[in-house]
Amino acid sequence: MVEAKPEGTNRMSDTKGPFERLQALLATDMQAVNTLIRARMASEHAPRIPEVTAHLVEAGGKRLRPMLTLAAARICGYEGADHIKLAATVEFIHTATLLHDDVVDESGQRRGRPTANLLWDNKSSVLVGDYLFARSFQLMVETGTLRVLDILANASAVIAEGEVLQLTAAQDLATTEAVYLQVVRGKTAALFAAACEVGGVIAKADEADVNALRAYGDALGISFQIVDDLLDYGGTAASFGKNIGDDFRERKLTMPIILAIAAGDDSEREFWKRTIEKGEQQPGDLEHAIALMNSHNTLEATRQKALDWSRRAKDALERLPQSELRDLLQDIADFVVSRIV
Amino acid sequence: MVEAKPEGTNRMSDTKGPFERLQALLATDMQAVNTLIRARMASEHAPRIPEVTAHLVEAGGKRLRPMLTLAAARICGYEGADHIKLAATVEFIHTATLLHDDVVDESGQRRGRPTANLLWDNKSSVLVGDYLFARSFQLMVETGTLRVLDILANASAVIAEGEVLQLTAAQDLATTEAVYLQVVRGKTAALFAAACEVGGVIAKADEADVNALRAYGDALGISFQIVDDLLDYGGTAASFGKNIGDDFRERKLTMPIILAIAAGDDSEREFWKRTIEKGEQQPGDLEHAIALMNSHNTLEATRQKALDWSRRAKDALERLPQSELRDLLQDIADFVVSRIV
Repeated sequence: MVEAKPEGTNRMSDTKGPFERLQALLATDMQAVNTLIRARMASEHAPRIPEVTAHLVEAGGKRLRPMLTLAAARICGYEGADHIKLAATVEFIHTATLLHDDVVDESGQRRGRPTANLLWDNKSSVLVGDYLFARSFQLMVETGTLRVLDILANASAVIAEGEVLQLTAAQDLATTEAVYLQVVRGKTAALFAAACEVGGVIAKADEADVNALRAYGDALGISFQIVDDLLDYGGTAASFGKNIGDDFRERKLTMPIILAIAAGDDSEREFWKRTIEKGEQQPGDLEHAIALMNSHNTLEATRQKALDWSRRAKDALERLPQSELRDLLQDIADFVVSRIV
Repeated sequence: MVEAKPEGTNRMSDTKGPFERLQALLATDMQAVNTLIRARMASEHAPRIPEVTAHLVEAGGKRLRPMLTLAAARICGYEGADHIKLAATVEFIHTATLLHDDVVDESGQRRGRPTANLLWDNKSSVLVGDYLFARSFQLMVETGTLRVLDILANASAVIAEGEVLQLTAAQDLATTEAVYLQVVRGKTAALFAAACEVGGVIAKADEADVNALRAYGDALGISFQIVDDLLDYGGTAASFGKNIGDDFRERKLTMPIILAIAAGDDSEREFWKRTIEKGEQQPGDLEHAIALMNSHNTLEATRQKALDWSRRAKDALERLPQSELRDLLQDIADFVVSRIV
């Protein structure tokens, strides 16, 4: 799962960004979440488990997902303690999917995929991921709320389905925007949406508010992922730490490329067929791909879609009572697209 | 997950074995389970999913685990329909763990592991396994019984922990019988135990009966696995379809070898160090390993342990009211060890 990292890493101004402000506002809750994560990550019998997860759980994470759960619960006036468990649940699910995404095939390695599992073998990634799934499952059961379990079970199915879909859609020039959206929901938006929704559910918010939170998470996740896919063809490697053209080299069908294929003529189709379907790439192909995208204006169209989803995320929250946290979540939706405005 | 296949495959007599009698008695329920499995395996968006699972779910399985759930519920007088869902849940969890166990590392392949994922790549095995886990999760949530969710969440954690433990204990001569039991619980007994327990729980059986069912499943699973490990050093390849010495070649520390290491002198320890820890195996090593086991009587000791767990399984059911199904489950415990008596 390749992700944008919008959480303040490239904010150099002295006024704090929305992500830092969210962190500050939720600091006490997040400390409880972190303590719980460390406790539940441990395994009496299998010490390798915290070894494998530590580098993911401790170092890497900006913890946006658990913060969404905490914020949603607080916005809806929740005063219990189960939001801590659900926030940890959401982070465990996220970490488990990262571990499973690390599993590579030989061919995958040869194509120069980022092999985050260099430190650990495939088998450890799979089994420790399964362990984190099981731990997340135990945590959510502890909340004793069947509706929460239902939401997270459905999210898990959408995530897994989206990942399989991405696998089968890979290198398939017939991939449509609808399929792409389904993939994006699986890899990012489903967990964002569930993270927000369960916060509202445990707070016993009214149905319309719960739906608003869910819609916010869904739109935020989609926007987040489209920005990431766009930057793969347009950001600058120096400032964002991501190489331009990774998705192209990995022959991933993301929004900019899907739109370009749809708009292209026969000779362009041959180009996409060679580079994406067959994977026969030569020096200069990436530049030509970007030129084709620009000629059809698909990078701009992709940008507009990201902005549109960001706007939808903000709009969804409008019906909730105004509060500092609600406004901050809206600011987060702006922040996600701040690198492409 | 290497398993014994005791389910009637080598029963040639005309009187039906206990497994066939169990199948006959539960035929209507099992038909409903199979229909549900087929329906829930499908994916609107990702057609690869049924492709990958079909060969596992349709062809391979003897469905012992779901039958345990059905039998346990029936024994306790259950008359609802949720046992069907739980039986399908249990089978999905089992199939998912098989898929995840198929994931191999290059080194694993080189050591001549059975690569059940030759047909499908690692990534598909992981992601489709995740999908089946998610589907099983949805199914159990539908029963609306928090205690069932708690049992299956805990079983999932024990399964994953046991698998990780097996990975870290592999090739480690210090592995004790206690660690081995923990691994066996993870790979086999935890799901057997949960499969039985949830049957009692949905039937609202009294606590002692639920515990009896759980104890039965646990002991049956342990016996089942020890028999399998024993046959790896003692069965005949022709009749059981399993090669002698697979575990030795894969350097797995199972009961017969753990007991032999514990009983061995310094020179024997050097032998185990070379063959298991370092994996430097030569022709004749397997025969020497078996000779060492025989000299310390560890194959016989292993056999006694399997028989003992089988007896514990049968004893556990004694407190339940006598019925055809209860007696059949006891016969199944005998049947599991029938190849080693």
